[in-house]
Amino acid sequence: MSKNFSYDQLYTFSKNIFIKIGCNDADAETATKSLLSADLRGVDSHGVARLSGYIRLWEAERVNAKAQMKIVHETPSTAVIDGDRGLGLVVAPFAMQVAISKAKQVGTGWVSVKNSNHFGIAGHHAMMALEHDMIGIAMTNASALVAPTFSSERMLGTNPIAVTIPAGNQPAFVADFATTTAANGKLEVLQRQNKDVPSGWVLTKEGVPSNSANEIKNGGMLLPLGGDKEHGSHKGYALGAIADIFSGILSGASYGPWVPPFPAYLTMPENMPGEGIGHFFGAMRIDAFRPAAEFKEHMDKWIGRFRSAKTIPGQEKVLIPGDPEREMETERMKNGIPLLPAVVADLEAISIKFNVVF
Amino acid sequence: MSKNFSYDQLYTFSKNIFIKIGCNDADAETATKSLLSADLRGVDSHGVARLSGYIRLWEAERVNAKAQMKIVHETPSTAVIDGDRGLGLVVAPFAMQVAISKAKQVGTGWVSVKNSNHFGIAGHHAMMALEHDMIGIAMTNASALVAPTFSSERMLGTNPIAVTIPAGNQPAFVADFATTTAANGKLEVLQRQNKDVPSGWVLTKEGVPSNSANEIKNGGMLLPLGGDKEHGSHKGYALGAIADIFSGILSGASYGPWVPPFPAYLTMPENMPGEGIGHFFGAMRIDAFRPAAEFKEHMDKWIGRFRSAKTIPGQEKVLIPGDPEREMETERMKNGIPLLPAVVADLEAISIKFNVVF
Repeated sequence: MSKNFSYDQLYTFSKNIFIKIGCNDADAETATKSLLSADLRGVDSHGVARLSGYIRLWEAERVNAKAQMKIVHETPSTAVIDGDRGLGLVVAPFAMQVAISKAKQVGTGWVSVKNSNHFGIAGHHAMMALEHDMIGIAMTNASALVAPTFSSERMLGTNPIAVTIPAGNQPAFVADFATTTAANGKLEVLQRQNKDVPSGWVLTKEGVPSNSANEIKNGGMLLPLGGDKEHGSHKGYALGAIADIFSGILSGASYGPWVPPFPAYLTMPENMPGEGIGHFFGAMRIDAFRPAAEFKEHMDKWIGRFRSAKTIPGQEKVLIPGDPEREMETERMKNGIPLLPAVVADLEAISIKFNVVF
Repeated sequence: MSKNFSYDQLYTFSKNIFIKIGCNDADAETATKSLLSADLRGVDSHGVARLSGYIRLWEAERVNAKAQMKIVHETPSTAVIDGDRGLGLVVAPFAMQVAISKAKQVGTGWVSVKNSNHFGIAGHHAMMALEHDMIGIAMTNASALVAPTFSSERMLGTNPIAVTIPAGNQPAFVADFATTTAANGKLEVLQRQNKDVPSGWVLTKEGVPSNSANEIKNGGMLLPLGGDKEHGSHKGYALGAIADIFSGILSGASYGPWVPPFPAYLTMPENMPGEGIGHFFGAMRIDAFRPAAEFKEHMDKWIGRFRSAKTIPGQEKVLIPGDPEREMETERMKNGIPLLPAVVADLEAISIKFNVVF
């Protein structure tokens, strides 16, 4: 049902589209790499399938393709960046680079960003730290879909958190997860397959637990990691809240139920308390704590030990965060990225509209 | 069944006991405040009920009551501290103070600690940042009780993470949670009541899901937040792993299945890859990002909005992280701290042994 497209084809196409909407060459490359990292890593909901969504935001004048990001406040280890309504796909790597530069100077760097838009997948930005022998951290807020514990109201986004940690001979530790039981993308997959969702994923719009994959469409809500109070949903709620506050309130972006929606056809929240979407990034130089070679040796030992841990019945191996996505990336670089017919049709429409070869 | 004791009585008693094992006056006070903050905040498993456990560690010469903590490596925003086998209850506030001092200088401070012992509750240490208008972060590793996703082996501790965020007129946001579905303390409560535990909390020692509150005693395991893969346990596993790596590997402490156990009668793990238990602390000055008054105004707005969010059927209000613990603290400061007969007997035995009035 889906058809495979090479990374190169999608790269050239996406880059040319970003140039058409006004990005300079460097920004178009940065945006494309951010966007397609989602497809490569198997987060299909956040990749090229969203290209048309970004274009609609640009058409609605909510995205500025010629954004001039700038540092509006800083100390030796921190900065606040105004994203100038730029593509989050471009703003985020810029901000992460500032965090890395600060870490080079004083050991760690921490950057909060306002006035941005959706930045693709958090893990892509956090991974920028790895080649510098740094730990990378990235998080963002997003428009509200999630009901806090005991609530029946959309108050938080799926607010993902990514933490990447370099290793030696082993591949890096790359955790990147929505602070909900399940990401919205997984719900959409089950919806297309006309299947039920497990308990603990969603509520109806009245706040009643449900197994329908259509609840979000019907005004329902996603649940924080944990699902319900008995299973620790107050912890998932706290994690989503932390990502919201670090991204939104530290920077001066909007937050909570006032975060602007991704779909351009939705109206903006009234009385927004800040500017645009917020992100938060961190970089910690390993050798600000101990020699990097020593650290990596122990990371290899950690990873090796966990990988060889005894398994539960029916499972072959214990995974390290980042394993499935890395394997997916290798596979898709080789065999191409599968796109559903609806996504292909979307890209073909963009191709015609902008007169860019797909 | 339980009997109430005043904070003052428990404070004087605990402080005198810490002095008897060799702490100086200041360290005994610090240790007592760390320990009893757990009782005040309702985390009964981590409070004065553990006093005898700390004493047994001291008797086994695993705790050094006269520890000389020192910074063994640093940059402007980071430090590694050697805890000199001290009480974690004393080492942690020392390390958090270093993080706060660094934040005063360069905006943020990040401290990893090796060669320490159990530090009580993470939230107590993270809350030290609040009075300085800083965000506080604290985490620790602990001896292995938790099976990663797909594993049937104890590989991680319950590795708690605390994040505290100052507000203005509203009380501070205080998140402090084990990275498991449920903390071991909750399991012990159900065990005493001879009740089943909910699904998603524990596995048998063979790695099979169970509802018995006795599984840990029988060699079983706690599950990471999320419970199983379908409910996002790989996210809870990642969180526990991050706390382990930041606390253990950044500092040079032990980690994973090699973290020393709290009960002194258990043998130490063989071939430990590092020294003692590890912790990790962070402090971020609010005005390293934006003026503190402005930030707090928005935190008040955030908290007010979330507190007034619509509730699910059967619930009266949406809580802010830290609400239940703060209310408990007020109540227990007024009416005393309830201790179970077994705990009282334990304290009476200590009283006789050390010839200190209880």
